[in-house]
Amino acid sequence: MSQRVMVVEQILNANDQLAVENQQRLEANKVFAINILASPGAGKTSLILRTIEALSGRLRLAVVEGDTAPVTIDADKVSARGIPAVQINTGGDCHLDAVMFQMALPQFDLAQLDLMIVENVGNLICPVNFRLGTHKNILIASAPEGDDKPYKYPGIYRGVDALIINKIDLLPYVTFDMDYFRRGVEMLNPGLITFPLSCRTGEGLEAWVEWLAAETQARMGDGGASDN
Amino acid sequence: MSQRVMVVEQILNANDQLAVENQQRLEANKVFAINILASPGAGKTSLILRTIEALSGRLRLAVVEGDTAPVTIDADKVSARGIPAVQINTGGDCHLDAVMFQMALPQFDLAQLDLMIVENVGNLICPVNFRLGTHKNILIASAPEGDDKPYKYPGIYRGVDALIINKIDLLPYVTFDMDYFRRGVEMLNPGLITFPLSCRTGEGLEAWVEWLAAETQARMGDGGASDN
Repeated sequence: MSQRVMVVEQILNANDQLAVENQQRLEANKVFAINILASPGAGKTSLILRTIEALSGRLRLAVVEGDTAPVTIDADKVSARGIPAVQINTGGDCHLDAVMFQMALPQFDLAQLDLMIVENVGNLICPVNFRLGTHKNILIASAPEGDDKPYKYPGIYRGVDALIINKIDLLPYVTFDMDYFRRGVEMLNPGLITFPLSCRTGEGLEAWVEWLAAETQARMGDGGASDN
Repeated sequence: MSQRVMVVEQILNANDQLAVENQQRLEANKVFAINILASPGAGKTSLILRTIEALSGRLRLAVVEGDTAPVTIDADKVSARGIPAVQINTGGDCHLDAVMFQMALPQFDLAQLDLMIVENVGNLICPVNFRLGTHKNILIASAPEGDDKPYKYPGIYRGVDALIINKIDLLPYVTFDMDYFRRGVEMLNPGLITFPLSCRTGEGLEAWVEWLAAETQARMGDGGASDN
């Protein structure tokens, strides 16, 4: 009788196992969750505030704010708008992880939520390898950062489900070749859905907000297929 | 006879031991070295190109370019100006370290250099804990990133020797409270020397360039006291 060879097809690391648990918990409550990634100052908090403003009458929202330091600047801004917010202080760590996100979840009444927005730490490198259990990764690029970022930080562009190009109101004052930028993105993540907008002027926000609302409603309807 | 108690006052980790070696090597050749830190798109490469333009007739320069991906965009720009440049590809790592810098040093004829400029990976968190052996850490903040960055990324503000506020030509078009920003910096790093400037228009560059030239000349004169 020959020996059987065991083939283990996919081994999740500890973080990703917890991410799966987090996602199951969100889906049991029909909550759609997004993870917002960007470099420092690209406009994560501004986008969240604009999104809250547009959707708070239509969807029940909550926000998780990731920060490397014990400051509640962003969480306070969200709370001031009447939206439940929890701040995660990473204690200097350069990214959120599934353990931190798991600790934040019990702070919310999930049964009373439709959409949870997670603001990751400002960093284009480290968050890439740490799934949280959210359904979609959203990357914000910012016009004044320049058009070469897809070429220099390919990892994060490869791993996202939608791209926002913020601060387009500054395009007349900075050097930003949109074709060069888009070619870089297309090479890494073909067909990536992209929303050029300005959180400052409001231009382009509607397309983003409507896409997010539609994604949330689709997820609430079908009970949630797992994306990432 | 009583037992002697050994007190080891400062244990350097492996990275910092190598950083000390790197600095000794630079000083043996009377080379002054700076480590440029910033978030992605704050203007590290632009500042380096402007600095080269201003100083290449007066000092013998070299540049080390840190990137997370195997792209030589920045190193090519430096080389095109006739300045020796070496690119370090971190292979996805979020910061340079003393080992990588040590591997770059033999690529230069150190005896023929006065000033070496190192461009770290675009990241406000991870590079903080990895000394390279350079003499000064220079942080670039960027006006469109917003005025709250010292409060959100205190670690990097604490550990630097000079601060550049780039893209001041965009101040009329963005929300940036200079007093609030400066209070945050002062709390973390009292008396930190600061250069507001615009690499795009050239405004404010002279003060930075003259400070850097003076620091380099002082170091070349005294053989180099160790800072960090």
